[in-house]
Amino acid sequence: MNNTTTDTHTLLQFSPFQSAIDASFWHAFADKKLNFIQLSQDPQAIHAYYALGSSSSSNVLPPQLCIPGQALEGNATRPSATIPCTGTLINTNTFEQFQSMDKNLLFQQTADKIWQLIQSGDPSYICRFLMLTFADLKKFKFYYWFAFPAIIPTKPWSTISNQSIHEVYSTEQITSLASSYHEAGQPSCFVIQTQSDNTLRVLPCSTTVTSTSNMITLGFADPSSSPMTPGWPLRNLLAWAHHKFKSHSFQVVCYRESPSKSDALGSIVIHTELPLDATYLTQNQTNVKSVGWERNVQGKLGPRMADLGPLMDPTRLADTSVDLNLKLMRWRVMPSLDLDKVKGTKCLLLGAGTLGCYVARSLLGWGVRHITFVDSGRVSFSNPVRQPLYTFNDCLNGGASKAETAAKSLTEIQPSMVTKGYTLSIPMPGHPTTSTDDVLDRDLQQLMDLIESHDVVFLLTDSRESRWLPSLLGARLDKLVINAALGFDTYLVMRHGPTSSSLGCYFCNDIVAPTDSLTDRTLDQQCTVTRPGLSAMAAALAVELMVTILQHKEGIYAQADTTTSQPSSVLGLVPHQIRGFLAQFNNLLIVGQGYENCTACSKKILDAFDDDPLALVKKVTNDSLVLERITGLDEMKKQSEALLDQDWALSEDDDDDNHAGGF
Amino acid sequence: MNNTTTDTHTLLQFSPFQSAIDASFWHAFADKKLNFIQLSQDPQAIHAYYALGSSSSSNVLPPQLCIPGQALEGNATRPSATIPCTGTLINTNTFEQFQSMDKNLLFQQTADKIWQLIQSGDPSYICRFLMLTFADLKKFKFYYWFAFPAIIPTKPWSTISNQSIHEVYSTEQITSLASSYHEAGQPSCFVIQTQSDNTLRVLPCSTTVTSTSNMITLGFADPSSSPMTPGWPLRNLLAWAHHKFKSHSFQVVCYRESPSKSDALGSIVIHTELPLDATYLTQNQTNVKSVGWERNVQGKLGPRMADLGPLMDPTRLADTSVDLNLKLMRWRVMPSLDLDKVKGTKCLLLGAGTLGCYVARSLLGWGVRHITFVDSGRVSFSNPVRQPLYTFNDCLNGGASKAETAAKSLTEIQPSMVTKGYTLSIPMPGHPTTSTDDVLDRDLQQLMDLIESHDVVFLLTDSRESRWLPSLLGARLDKLVINAALGFDTYLVMRHGPTSSSLGCYFCNDIVAPTDSLTDRTLDQQCTVTRPGLSAMAAALAVELMVTILQHKEGIYAQADTTTSQPSSVLGLVPHQIRGFLAQFNNLLIVGQGYENCTACSKKILDAFDDDPLALVKKVTNDSLVLERITGLDEMKKQSEALLDQDWALSEDDDDDNHAGGF
Repeated sequence: MNNTTTDTHTLLQFSPFQSAIDASFWHAFADKKLNFIQLSQDPQAIHAYYALGSSSSSNVLPPQLCIPGQALEGNATRPSATIPCTGTLINTNTFEQFQSMDKNLLFQQTADKIWQLIQSGDPSYICRFLMLTFADLKKFKFYYWFAFPAIIPTKPWSTISNQSIHEVYSTEQITSLASSYHEAGQPSCFVIQTQSDNTLRVLPCSTTVTSTSNMITLGFADPSSSPMTPGWPLRNLLAWAHHKFKSHSFQVVCYRESPSKSDALGSIVIHTELPLDATYLTQNQTNVKSVGWERNVQGKLGPRMADLGPLMDPTRLADTSVDLNLKLMRWRVMPSLDLDKVKGTKCLLLGAGTLGCYVARSLLGWGVRHITFVDSGRVSFSNPVRQPLYTFNDCLNGGASKAETAAKSLTEIQPSMVTKGYTLSIPMPGHPTTSTDDVLDRDLQQLMDLIESHDVVFLLTDSRESRWLPSLLGARLDKLVINAALGFDTYLVMRHGPTSSSLGCYFCNDIVAPTDSLTDRTLDQQCTVTRPGLSAMAAALAVELMVTILQHKEGIYAQADTTTSQPSSVLGLVPHQIRGFLAQFNNLLIVGQGYENCTACSKKILDAFDDDPLALVKKVTNDSLVLERITGLDEMKKQSEALLDQDWALSEDDDDDNHAGGF
Repeated sequence: MNNTTTDTHTLLQFSPFQSAIDASFWHAFADKKLNFIQLSQDPQAIHAYYALGSSSSSNVLPPQLCIPGQALEGNATRPSATIPCTGTLINTNTFEQFQSMDKNLLFQQTADKIWQLIQSGDPSYICRFLMLTFADLKKFKFYYWFAFPAIIPTKPWSTISNQSIHEVYSTEQITSLASSYHEAGQPSCFVIQTQSDNTLRVLPCSTTVTSTSNMITLGFADPSSSPMTPGWPLRNLLAWAHHKFKSHSFQVVCYRESPSKSDALGSIVIHTELPLDATYLTQNQTNVKSVGWERNVQGKLGPRMADLGPLMDPTRLADTSVDLNLKLMRWRVMPSLDLDKVKGTKCLLLGAGTLGCYVARSLLGWGVRHITFVDSGRVSFSNPVRQPLYTFNDCLNGGASKAETAAKSLTEIQPSMVTKGYTLSIPMPGHPTTSTDDVLDRDLQQLMDLIESHDVVFLLTDSRESRWLPSLLGARLDKLVINAALGFDTYLVMRHGPTSSSLGCYFCNDIVAPTDSLTDRTLDQQCTVTRPGLSAMAAALAVELMVTILQHKEGIYAQADTTTSQPSSVLGLVPHQIRGFLAQFNNLLIVGQGYENCTACSKKILDAFDDDPLALVKKVTNDSLVLERITGLDEMKKQSEALLDQDWALSEDDDDDNHAGGF
């Protein structure tokens, strides 16, 4: 023995693993928990890895078990020259469960699993670990506890000698070991044989070593960089070796490499012995003994906590939190809900008054990210209390633009919103515009572009006639059109049927053309007087109707359900019109058929529009009766009175401004 | 004749009135329009006045007709030494009406009225005026046009002489005139007689002057300060005099006084003549001729406009505008609506989550000015999109206090709000508090004080048990308690019956005591998962239910209406419970009877509370079963399962925080 040999009979000690979790893992985990794991507490396979220890003894890092971002994916990739290590993740749904779960049992189960593998003879996977977690996804705090079970004998292994590889092998041998190790595909553990030419050869552990007087030399990929102590994986390897070769004495090459070199430098060679009377499983033992809970930062046996909240970009955090709430719906109540479809829907709100503001609020709640406002008005002093996107300050100095202010406050609520406001007047039947053809053409074009570039159009203006052109364009472009209108204590919430369907639009049950209803209105007519609670209800219903339709397999082509129908969407009934009566606290579901003479969506009108859009719009703004002539309604006007006194046919958004523009 | 006599046969000219309207008049007028005049266009009597002209010829102000703040009140007071002048105000409801109304007709009608008075012999009220208005109460712009009809002869009066009073009368005479004028009570017009002792005496116009060779001397309270031209009232006075005395020649004392002196100084004496062939009403005339429209600031014959918007305190303006919208309801739809009752109601919102924020919004809309929040939580990132009183910024740095932030944003919406937020935990059954008795006592006391000092208590928390103590206190203090709770796509909105009524509270249909439902909840249980539109609907319904009850003559003692009932309030049905089913878009009205063993509102519980409030609350927080023992429910527990799976009995506010405090 030479002088570097350490004193005999010192106990063999091991550098324990330290868990190193990539922050991206927690995000991926949160995501998987929300979308897949949900409430399940089934064990999840988790794919980690560790790097070889190095010879750079300058700063000796503890061996790290790395949990990469995709650790929960089967296809998790790992850096070259690292060793895979598979574990089991068990997530609990509450902190209380996390605390009260029987950790020792889980630990023992893992140890038993390892013991089975040992007895099966193949040590490749005996480096296993356990990860217990509770994810507080609301605060982005992750509680976790690792265990690296190591099977221990009744009496410990001792170190006979601990030498640097140079002291045991020649340079040639070391070189041959390194190349053979890499040829063998960098195994986690192996047997080393000295060839006849004196070179070293790495053999799989499955090799049945012909019994020999020479001591068996084991090798293993050693995560430790400490010259004194080998890494944790050796513990189970020794258990395996003792079980397989029935030997109490082994030489172990703790295989390490210089940083980013495929040499074997820095490796240490240990001669270790197990007392002859020691064993791993005595008769009276039912389970193997094992150790290996990771200690927390305080050095105590207890869980660690990763608080990602502070690290996260608040905007991103807000975004995630909103999705979280929605995704919860899919856990128990409604697994088949397609939230991405809702989230991806682009909504155009025509009118940013009471209905417009409340509709936007409900869309926010549903996670819609793309909302565009069109309104020609300014915020007035009576608005903020009824229009929940405006404040007192928006009323000062003549009032800010409603459309732009509404968009601004959406981003103040949720910075990730994609939102814009257009201050634009919609051409209206019976409202001659003073503007030139170019201007009218431009406004018309802009409105068409906006409707074309959105998926859903909400009609939320405060006049009947301002809904005519959008209704026409919505039909022309087969968009989903949702319409909401208020009476004093009644409301109408409806969808427009696509042209190919039998369902009507807002104008289908009219037999008079929409015309100027704004000029010469008394104060209470200017501000359609409504019970304040009405707009919040109608707006929320309009959005819920939209979502219900989006969740229907046929979308805007969905047939109209009535109270007696079987719900045709995952969310329930998909009605055509909801008429609400606040004085009775009840609703009616109504189906309105399309009308061949409709002044907004009938073929006659759409054809006239296609012939020359600008010409039609110009004619109609100058004289709404043009519409009746085109559709032939003028013939039938006498019969009209009967229908006219419908609350909902007379009243619009409870917007208390009288915009010539029609909002 | 002396040198100051002006050249004969110059036409007699008159200084026209200039209308001078006190800003406070417009406010009073707006108020009266909203509350009384409303849509009526009936003529309103309006009480103006003018001051005597003065001798201070330094700066000669035009004669002003002053419209004081209370001009529309019968009891309008006016400054001493001013002359009353009554007119007629006619208000139009739209600007178009204001423009198109037949002004000449109205003018002629006023002139005819004056002519009648003239013929009746008494000229006291022949100084009349007409005021046409349109009030744009939304922009606080007032359009108005005054007319001071003066009857004119077929040929004009001419000035024979125009002298200062000193040139015509001795100082003694002037002094006697002044004192006699005041003894007579400062009449607007009078006859002057020279007494035997040469002093002057003021006689009422009714005096039948014994025909005499001497020219009759008239007097009138002259608003003009111009040495050359008398004021406008003289025109109708001359018409009267000519009609009464059949004379074509009069001496007129244009009675004026030095500022704040009761002298007659500054008066002028005019000798005027009407051509002998002139008359006021020729045979072929049906109506007298008259002039007197006021010119506008551009000097044109047209209306004037008073824009008070810029002058008004914006906060006040916002306040008025909000009331305006509400008052419009009373014009046509619902004259008997008692808005002040709603406005004066003090509302306590327990819970400032999704329901709390939306309830506050609807209360704002109804003009409620006093709103108090109680919540123990902080704003988290998922809140703003569903809780419409918070923004992204409120989530930063761990999140602002919900109660305080909610109050803050109410004032940002409406500065006149009286609102405060209390960060306070409500003691809950089955949630043992670590706090000392003093702290518990203090919290209990504060909650009691808050409930006592408010009229309506809203239960909007996110747990069942946090509603227990407020329900008990609400019953104990006979407050109106409104309760809203959410399921995934269902909601319950209800009022608690007062103890004397047969209607139940939230806990009356329970046969288990509320207990800890918060600890150990999975994520989706912590954040009661609801369809986002639900909270806006339930909150709006809760507020509408409150208002409906306030409008019921029996208030909280109102019987429960059902769908088939006759509406018992001006706003319609007054139900006990509204249960909503969003998947079907419908509601049910339910009546839940009070329960003698109720764990919150039964006599047994209230008595136990009265015995020792703190003791009961303490016991219950430690062990909720105490409630079952007090009420005897423990005997009946077996039967409970049946009722337990009620959506609404299991779910609370869609607040996505899990506050230990229970919000």
